[in-house]
Amino acid sequence: MNASFIHPVQDRLEAVEAHMRFQADDAHPDLSAALTHLIDAGGKRIRPIVTILTGELLGAPQDRLLDLAAAVELLHTATLVHDDMIDGALLRRGMPTLNAGWTPAATILTGDFIFARAAKLAAATGSVAVMDMFAEALTIIVDGEIRQQFTSKGLANLDDYYHRIYAKTASLFELASGAAALLAPVDSAARDTARRFGYEIGMAFQIMDDVLDYSAIQDRLGKPVGSDLRNGLLTLPALLYHKANPADPDIQSVIRRNGHQPNDIDALVARIRASDAVNQAVDEAERFVQRALTLLEALPQSGHREGLEELARYIVTREY
Amino acid sequence: MNASFIHPVQDRLEAVEAHMRFQADDAHPDLSAALTHLIDAGGKRIRPIVTILTGELLGAPQDRLLDLAAAVELLHTATLVHDDMIDGALLRRGMPTLNAGWTPAATILTGDFIFARAAKLAAATGSVAVMDMFAEALTIIVDGEIRQQFTSKGLANLDDYYHRIYAKTASLFELASGAAALLAPVDSAARDTARRFGYEIGMAFQIMDDVLDYSAIQDRLGKPVGSDLRNGLLTLPALLYHKANPADPDIQSVIRRNGHQPNDIDALVARIRASDAVNQAVDEAERFVQRALTLLEALPQSGHREGLEELARYIVTREY
Repeated sequence: MNASFIHPVQDRLEAVEAHMRFQADDAHPDLSAALTHLIDAGGKRIRPIVTILTGELLGAPQDRLLDLAAAVELLHTATLVHDDMIDGALLRRGMPTLNAGWTPAATILTGDFIFARAAKLAAATGSVAVMDMFAEALTIIVDGEIRQQFTSKGLANLDDYYHRIYAKTASLFELASGAAALLAPVDSAARDTARRFGYEIGMAFQIMDDVLDYSAIQDRLGKPVGSDLRNGLLTLPALLYHKANPADPDIQSVIRRNGHQPNDIDALVARIRASDAVNQAVDEAERFVQRALTLLEALPQSGHREGLEELARYIVTREY
Repeated sequence: MNASFIHPVQDRLEAVEAHMRFQADDAHPDLSAALTHLIDAGGKRIRPIVTILTGELLGAPQDRLLDLAAAVELLHTATLVHDDMIDGALLRRGMPTLNAGWTPAATILTGDFIFARAAKLAAATGSVAVMDMFAEALTIIVDGEIRQQFTSKGLANLDDYYHRIYAKTASLFELASGAAALLAPVDSAARDTARRFGYEIGMAFQIMDDVLDYSAIQDRLGKPVGSDLRNGLLTLPALLYHKANPADPDIQSVIRRNGHQPNDIDALVARIRASDAVNQAVDEAERFVQRALTLLEALPQSGHREGLEELARYIVTREY
């Protein structure tokens, strides 16, 4: 990623990476190798960027932000490890998952170890409030994953969808920005604004991820187009398509069969892609980003605030 | 368990149970049911008793101890859930494990959820030092489990054994007593004494558990006698037997095959049971308990100190 909002924080982002790598230095060699693999697999590091930009904008100490940013990204990494195992995914970001080459025992324990290191880094911030927000985010993420596994399949319900993407993604963005503000010498109004900024961009981020599932090519995403639907999960494009086409027998079949896919899922995915539902979903993501930009107006004007604005806009201008 | 050291803290122990149950109240119904099942399955609650006795002895506030005791027991519970899954165990304490009736996804996520709630309770103590010790204990436990899975099988090495039982058990007892002392208005010498007391009884506790694996009946333990050895793991009785009988071909076979069991494992287990190794292992546990009792002499004399003394002695007088 070569987005302009990264440049001002590039060196701190590299420090976050180094801090993450350091967490496995005294661990079992296999574990250390696993963590290195996961860190190499990369990702956009958008959550640590949010933490650094928000925290520095509000005057939080850089060393505490380094701990927090690494904690947030490791928490994200740990949940991916367990999710990939649960979903049986063999690829993520085009790289093999741990799950693809490791035993279930190794995968579960690697996830647990990364959770433990993330918690240790959250404690290293020295803030009980950060620690509490960290533990709360973890609870929300896991509860959401359980809901996704056991309740959400075949459910054509917008409230359930928004709850699900909050738990899955926006809760961690809330932590990334909200906990950064907790480390800064600012009042509760500014902290609340920072937290809500994270919420809004997190919701937009997950909607765009769900849009991507209907538009990206297999090579880029590392999974087949429409994979959520094939797994029985209706995300925003499918929900909007269903709203416009309630009688489509194939989407009815996804809903009725509660997670079982119809024979002609490819045709259904093609119809959703050809419909206006995908554009409508992007419009919805843009509304979240617009709310995020409005929230930023209450924070101090600076290059870092501009960075957060660019980051928010970047979320809805990713190429699809 | 009807040991005398429980009576003075019975009401607080009931409060800890209620506090643990409350953690799943707002979660997904299946998750809530799983946590209730795990809490009903019980166990001796010896870790929360250590927390309450130590903390109250040193003057820590009762409400913070309640949070800590529930955090420690939930952390213990979460590690059991993942361990049972890793080991494929279908019974624990004579009750079905989650693993026996649930999908892997549900089991992994239930463990993660309990970790999350434990972390939240540790944060609720309001002490960064407690939170840090909590995260450190989790790291040690998971690293130890990884070592047990990937390094320790077939290893006839006492250092490895002591490291393993520290990671598996004594680290959590250290947390139970050490974090309780962190919540009390005492100096660092008293805190160190409390932490080391937890270490010594934790080591004794795990040695006695390993002794039990060579002496209890299947009905009571819920697993076959010698299960560790069948799984390629040499615990103290096997290590002491090996020291006295280095040429025994069957124990050589366990070591050489690195985790694979010889055909005549029943005969080997019977020889270990008939040897003096089991008694020697109990002697070793008694030495740990003796060190624990000596440490207690530095703490204030009170009914609670007597309770800790009784608890320490109880560990080596369980019936085998």
